[in-house]
Amino acid sequence: MTGGRPRSETSRLAILDAARDLLLERGYERLTIDAIATRAGVGRQTIYRWWASKSAVVADAALEGDLAPPLVPPPDTGDIETDLRGWLRAWTHRLTTAESTGFILALTAATADDRAIADILYDRFTRPHEQLLRDRLELARVAGQLAPDAPVSTIAGVLIGSMLYRVLSRQAPPTADDADLVVGLVFHGSGNRGRRTGI
Amino acid sequence: MTGGRPRSETSRLAILDAARDLLLERGYERLTIDAIATRAGVGRQTIYRWWASKSAVVADAALEGDLAPPLVPPPDTGDIETDLRGWLRAWTHRLTTAESTGFILALTAATADDRAIADILYDRFTRPHEQLLRDRLELARVAGQLAPDAPVSTIAGVLIGSMLYRVLSRQAPPTADDADLVVGLVFHGSGNRGRRTGI
Repeated sequence: MTGGRPRSETSRLAILDAARDLLLERGYERLTIDAIATRAGVGRQTIYRWWASKSAVVADAALEGDLAPPLVPPPDTGDIETDLRGWLRAWTHRLTTAESTGFILALTAATADDRAIADILYDRFTRPHEQLLRDRLELARVAGQLAPDAPVSTIAGVLIGSMLYRVLSRQAPPTADDADLVVGLVFHGSGNRGRRTGI
Repeated sequence: MTGGRPRSETSRLAILDAARDLLLERGYERLTIDAIATRAGVGRQTIYRWWASKSAVVADAALEGDLAPPLVPPPDTGDIETDLRGWLRAWTHRLTTAESTGFILALTAATADDRAIADILYDRFTRPHEQLLRDRLELARVAGQLAPDAPVSTIAGVLIGSMLYRVLSRQAPPTADDADLVVGLVFHGSGNRGRRTGI
């Protein structure tokens, strides 16, 4: 992600620390390369020698730091719908703090800027959450709590993707009620029940 | 979106034309301010005088040009599930062309960079598609093809958001099969039918 080996590991770490701290203080939008350089005590050309853009610096800071939201597996009480409802509410709540929103916007900008960074960020920050959901859903499917042909990967993608998309669009952030509605939808559907039972 | 009135409308339009053409030729990732300046026949400082970043130039080019995917209302054959399945397949297909993907990545980067741009882009490029879906779903709900309490806005957001999120993550692009699975999920749910009918 950096262009060759940095001359000074100390400067590199100071830049990444500054990027992380400023991201948390100001959010992604008001973060600038100049501010990172000033905070790190380096010239802006030092940053541009190693990174192509603000988003690339922030992606590296995310990868080296502990900026990611924690990975919390869904509980297993034996009731898949209640478990997923609780999990998606809590996950959505963590997603919509100012810090997480800044982090997510930064990673998405970095993803748009660079295909290789996109893969690294997805593997590190998104795939593990989807995998936790898929594992829990698969247990429920095998236990007969989901339809035998329930599309486990699609369900995981819909739960995570539809909440994340709302954060990325920067409109009204998703709420606990939104999480409940999406979980209800993927479990029960919205078709007219009278009509469906006639199929 | 531009910082003050441009000195030369000719230069401004040349820059926006160059940004649009290069986006279509190269995609967002390989688009650079230098290449836009060269193609437009202006200095890079001219671009930086009016726009803060590559994403801001591209957002303006999108707003002035005809880069947006067309707005196509869902058909109304009287069968909401068939209508939405066909619509989401076609919409997903348009979304995953190289040109559309470049366009979407550019708008998302611009959205991350600037809150005001985020609102303009959402109102212009995303909200109209969601509104078309909501209108069609509301007709179906009133006609008794959806449950009386079907969450129409949530359904529209899930259909659009979960497909867009897959494009934004730059992993395997969504396919017609993915569209079918998501439509099936929001209509029928994935709960175990035997269990659900006992509730």
